[in-house]
Amino acid sequence: MDEKYMKRAIELAKLGAGHTNPNPLVGCVVIKDGKIISEGYHEKYGEFHAERNALLRCTENTEGAELYVTLEPCCHQGKTPPCTDIIIEKGIKRVYVGSSDPNPLVDGGGNKKLRDNGIEVIEHVMERECDALNEIFFHYISKKTPFVAMKYAMTLDGKIAAFTGDSKWVTGEEARKHVHYLRKRYAGIMAGIGTVLADDPMLNCRIEDGVDPVRIICDSGLRIPENSNIVKTACDIKTIVACSDRADESAEKNLTEKGVHVVRVPSLPNGRPDLKWLMQYLGQDMKIDSILLEGGGTLNASALEQNIVNKIYAYIAPKLIGGADAKSPIEGRGIEYMKDAVNAEDVHVQMLGNDICIEGSIKEVDECLPE
Amino acid sequence: MDEKYMKRAIELAKLGAGHTNPNPLVGCVVIKDGKIISEGYHEKYGEFHAERNALLRCTENTEGAELYVTLEPCCHQGKTPPCTDIIIEKGIKRVYVGSSDPNPLVDGGGNKKLRDNGIEVIEHVMERECDALNEIFFHYISKKTPFVAMKYAMTLDGKIAAFTGDSKWVTGEEARKHVHYLRKRYAGIMAGIGTVLADDPMLNCRIEDGVDPVRIICDSGLRIPENSNIVKTACDIKTIVACSDRADESAEKNLTEKGVHVVRVPSLPNGRPDLKWLMQYLGQDMKIDSILLEGGGTLNASALEQNIVNKIYAYIAPKLIGGADAKSPIEGRGIEYMKDAVNAEDVHVQMLGNDICIEGSIKEVDECLPE
Repeated sequence: MDEKYMKRAIELAKLGAGHTNPNPLVGCVVIKDGKIISEGYHEKYGEFHAERNALLRCTENTEGAELYVTLEPCCHQGKTPPCTDIIIEKGIKRVYVGSSDPNPLVDGGGNKKLRDNGIEVIEHVMERECDALNEIFFHYISKKTPFVAMKYAMTLDGKIAAFTGDSKWVTGEEARKHVHYLRKRYAGIMAGIGTVLADDPMLNCRIEDGVDPVRIICDSGLRIPENSNIVKTACDIKTIVACSDRADESAEKNLTEKGVHVVRVPSLPNGRPDLKWLMQYLGQDMKIDSILLEGGGTLNASALEQNIVNKIYAYIAPKLIGGADAKSPIEGRGIEYMKDAVNAEDVHVQMLGNDICIEGSIKEVDECLPE
Repeated sequence: MDEKYMKRAIELAKLGAGHTNPNPLVGCVVIKDGKIISEGYHEKYGEFHAERNALLRCTENTEGAELYVTLEPCCHQGKTPPCTDIIIEKGIKRVYVGSSDPNPLVDGGGNKKLRDNGIEVIEHVMERECDALNEIFFHYISKKTPFVAMKYAMTLDGKIAAFTGDSKWVTGEEARKHVHYLRKRYAGIMAGIGTVLADDPMLNCRIEDGVDPVRIICDSGLRIPENSNIVKTACDIKTIVACSDRADESAEKNLTEKGVHVVRVPSLPNGRPDLKWLMQYLGQDMKIDSILLEGGGTLNASALEQNIVNKIYAYIAPKLIGGADAKSPIEGRGIEYMKDAVNAEDVHVQMLGNDICIEGSIKEVDECLPE
């Protein structure tokens, strides 16, 4: 066993980012006589899986070869045939597997099928690193709701804008570029109507080989202007506006005519939109496996209160702006006691130019925050 | 030249932390035939310097030995005789120097004296690391005002307390212990009356071998309660209360009787205390070379506006609390535009348990923030 091959498989897997949703990212390397004889990855949703790509394009004899794959091979017929079949067919003698596949249609069945056919299977190889590739897939396959990452950029004194509302720019170029990689990776991007009215953003993905996420705007009263950048480009980039069940019907009709998909969201007793309901709708009806939440303080607070947030990306610029009235990333009512704060786990810190990116996971809790 | 000896000298220098103010931290190692034959550091204000300590306690013959010292040896008679004299006397042949000494009484004169006496001097050895030992000393010796570090602990969403005011605890034990090391290193600790009224803190240094800093409370109206922990311990731990020039005289008398040193600070046209004046008073009259500012949002904003802050220690706990009304570390009016924010430089990030400590320097600017 050699970790360098699994590392290579992980690198390959990442090349599929943004193109495979709601499928996982998977990479595969084929080894014979201590040499890589083929490589492959899952390149695009609906197309061949990593193992099939690697084995089909291999020009050497694979009899007795070893295969490293970041995720347990599938054993079911989906849009493409089971990967276990081609592994068996091609005479692979040993398979190194990173993550187990929690998909109910696989769930250990892939490894078992290989073993039943005399292939040695070594599981849990660099499992942590392989699991990290697919936090979105693992969540979505079991919950059927999108994996939600809350992203915000703030100053070192905790402000997302000056008291005047000015926020251009909090972070530097590298951090902003990193956000565009996230936008590529996530199937949807969600913002509130406040952000649209203040900044008239495009909310698209502006990097090479980028993939524009579906834009989801939380806009209870359908206040989004018809001449906003979002509405003007709704025919080119899929755009969902989530409004209250009491929103104006003619406004809905106007937006629909411009290519916007309007969805009416039930209200909670406190009058706020039921974001859990919206997540179920986006996951099940729209097949959106992941959402990058780029909200202001109010939307972010609702998302945290309603317990739909799975991850945080906090970009911190080493600058101070001050201001009792300057906006902070999560507002709303807030939690009463520090001991009840929502903890981020598996914290990872990285420098992006002069800025600091703090990434952490929010474990799902049963109890919601006070509303 | 061997960096390992200078590293050892730096380690030794740090042992003096909290005991040498307003003198610098200095460490020294004596080498002969590739072996350390003696070590020393400046242990306490008023006592011998590092070089003299190392050379006096050396039991071997120092003729022809080399000496590594983190700061240029002094050449003037102060509370103790010049270090250059004993270096010459003891027959040292070569001296490796880290930082230059900006003290007007030295300022290159130490190195020159050694060279004039036939000793080889190699300067700037690990200068950056040696300089980092004495940012306080370098500031104080030239400005005669305290080096001010603003310290705060906030959640990942930028709050120093919940909306209820609860702030116990934002960060974990390791971060809180780190703060006590800072309290040991800094000669003074400054807080606002709001903090005293809310938390009734001791503001002392609670670690082994700790040194309690002088406590400085900004309390314009002399509202500090006579039964507060601070006032009750004012005879044991030096305590300065800075009040407005219009504060009540009988309140001043009461506090003075309890051992508090009350100082009347002129007010700025906006009614706030003139912190620049206070810094000059503390530096020149009270010989306080360094202050750890543990203020709330209002005092921190005044300090930033009045441009007295030299350094930031932001401790960030990976937790989210939310709350539009929760306090943030720097409040006041704030800066209008993000492009005019105050930048932290030489940013250093470290993990302290689960918390993240972001440290940065604030370069002195001529222009003050809007008030």
